[in-house]
Amino acid sequence: MTVSLVGAGPGDPDLLTMKAARLLAQADVVVHDALVGDGVMDLVPERAERIDVGKRAGRPVPQEMISALLVELGRQGKRVVRLKGGDPFVFGRGGEEAIALQEAGVSFEIVPGITSCVAAPAAAGVPVTHRGVSAAFTVVTGHRRPGEPDVDWRALARFNRTGGTIVVLMGVAHRGAIADELIAGGLDPDTPVAAVRSATTGDQVVARCDLAELGSTHVESPATIVIGAVAAFDLLRVEHDAAPRFDPAQLAL
Amino acid sequence: MTVSLVGAGPGDPDLLTMKAARLLAQADVVVHDALVGDGVMDLVPERAERIDVGKRAGRPVPQEMISALLVELGRQGKRVVRLKGGDPFVFGRGGEEAIALQEAGVSFEIVPGITSCVAAPAAAGVPVTHRGVSAAFTVVTGHRRPGEPDVDWRALARFNRTGGTIVVLMGVAHRGAIADELIAGGLDPDTPVAAVRSATTGDQVVARCDLAELGSTHVESPATIVIGAVAAFDLLRVEHDAAPRFDPAQLAL
Repeated sequence: MTVSLVGAGPGDPDLLTMKAARLLAQADVVVHDALVGDGVMDLVPERAERIDVGKRAGRPVPQEMISALLVELGRQGKRVVRLKGGDPFVFGRGGEEAIALQEAGVSFEIVPGITSCVAAPAAAGVPVTHRGVSAAFTVVTGHRRPGEPDVDWRALARFNRTGGTIVVLMGVAHRGAIADELIAGGLDPDTPVAAVRSATTGDQVVARCDLAELGSTHVESPATIVIGAVAAFDLLRVEHDAAPRFDPAQLAL
Repeated sequence: MTVSLVGAGPGDPDLLTMKAARLLAQADVVVHDALVGDGVMDLVPERAERIDVGKRAGRPVPQEMISALLVELGRQGKRVVRLKGGDPFVFGRGGEEAIALQEAGVSFEIVPGITSCVAAPAAAGVPVTHRGVSAAFTVVTGHRRPGEPDVDWRALARFNRTGGTIVVLMGVAHRGAIADELIAGGLDPDTPVAAVRSATTGDQVVARCDLAELGSTHVESPATIVIGAVAAFDLLRVEHDAAPRFDPAQLAL
């Protein structure tokens, strides 16, 4: 395959897929953006060319330019890895690049990555689904781009009034307005919220609050914001008084 | 760490994370269920004990029994891998096992896996989000278990009337009723649908239809069902007349 659109996962290089790690090791060129973790970039071999398309002169590189670059590199027959934070199809604009490559007749493949919408909550001990608590989760962008269909936050709140989890990506800047809309749509102001920044890395920070407090709670961008009953869970909390309190005899074995 | 709750991904062993592959190679015991792909199980070393908790005598092993087993194995100090198809927290009941281990004071970790809810559509050339088409996706179980909160399919349809993607896991048996509810809630009967079985393996099968036809379309369980405008995409389709049709000069470079 000439061009591989590869998900780099949430940050921890150990969460790369085997396929992604192998493709990186064999790459001639790696085209990456800002959300790819430093630990992952350390796996790019010295001999490979690196092209940073995250920002140029402080401004994001236009998507059309990135797609054209991939087509050009692909036509040169290079082994190209287009490396994206998380998964290429979860707000990664992988679809646009795939269409450009498909239309140009350049062979390519999609290599999924661990998406932050599930892994960032997990790294904070929050399961996006949990039996009897949440039978659905909705992943939504909080950063409306030009041309993006509007998100109907009130309708989303109505769907989630009886349980369910909302995961907002790229929503830090508008978190207060998002919370207001969800409450107006019927979500309880007490609904638990967890916001996870730099998930799965040594810099991970978790903020917890309720929905009414989200706008005034300190959260640095980029972060994954989880809204719903499951956000109260802290499954990775270490019990310091960890005497065994679980009695298998209580269970119907 | 004593017990690792590990996501095995959608099927292709190449989509295991590096961490999952290492943990499997070092495991003393692997506790697995039916959704873990054969290719992944081939990576379990000969010397490791394998415990299949998918079905016993044709019936699923009760969750409480699996949790108690993990606690017991963890207390024996064994290196235990609890291997689950997809991701442990996406309808994987990893939360219940984590709570049991936490309450018992057994050290454990969560290792996310590539979830079928994103990777199965991707393997069929369907992006769950796409700029200008879908700014959200909802992952929902179509298999209501006792004690599970009801899914309000009509409210979900209303949220998705202006775009958005619905991904139904474990929904093959009830796909006709689900489609009826979504249409009653306002989704267009012409909404594209793709159903993907055995995603990312050599046995992958993709069925495409529209929402009104879903109930009468042949789909074998288990499959991932994607509903929404993105389901019309076929990004991995090979153009047999693949003369370059993409002109970079048309782009604003």
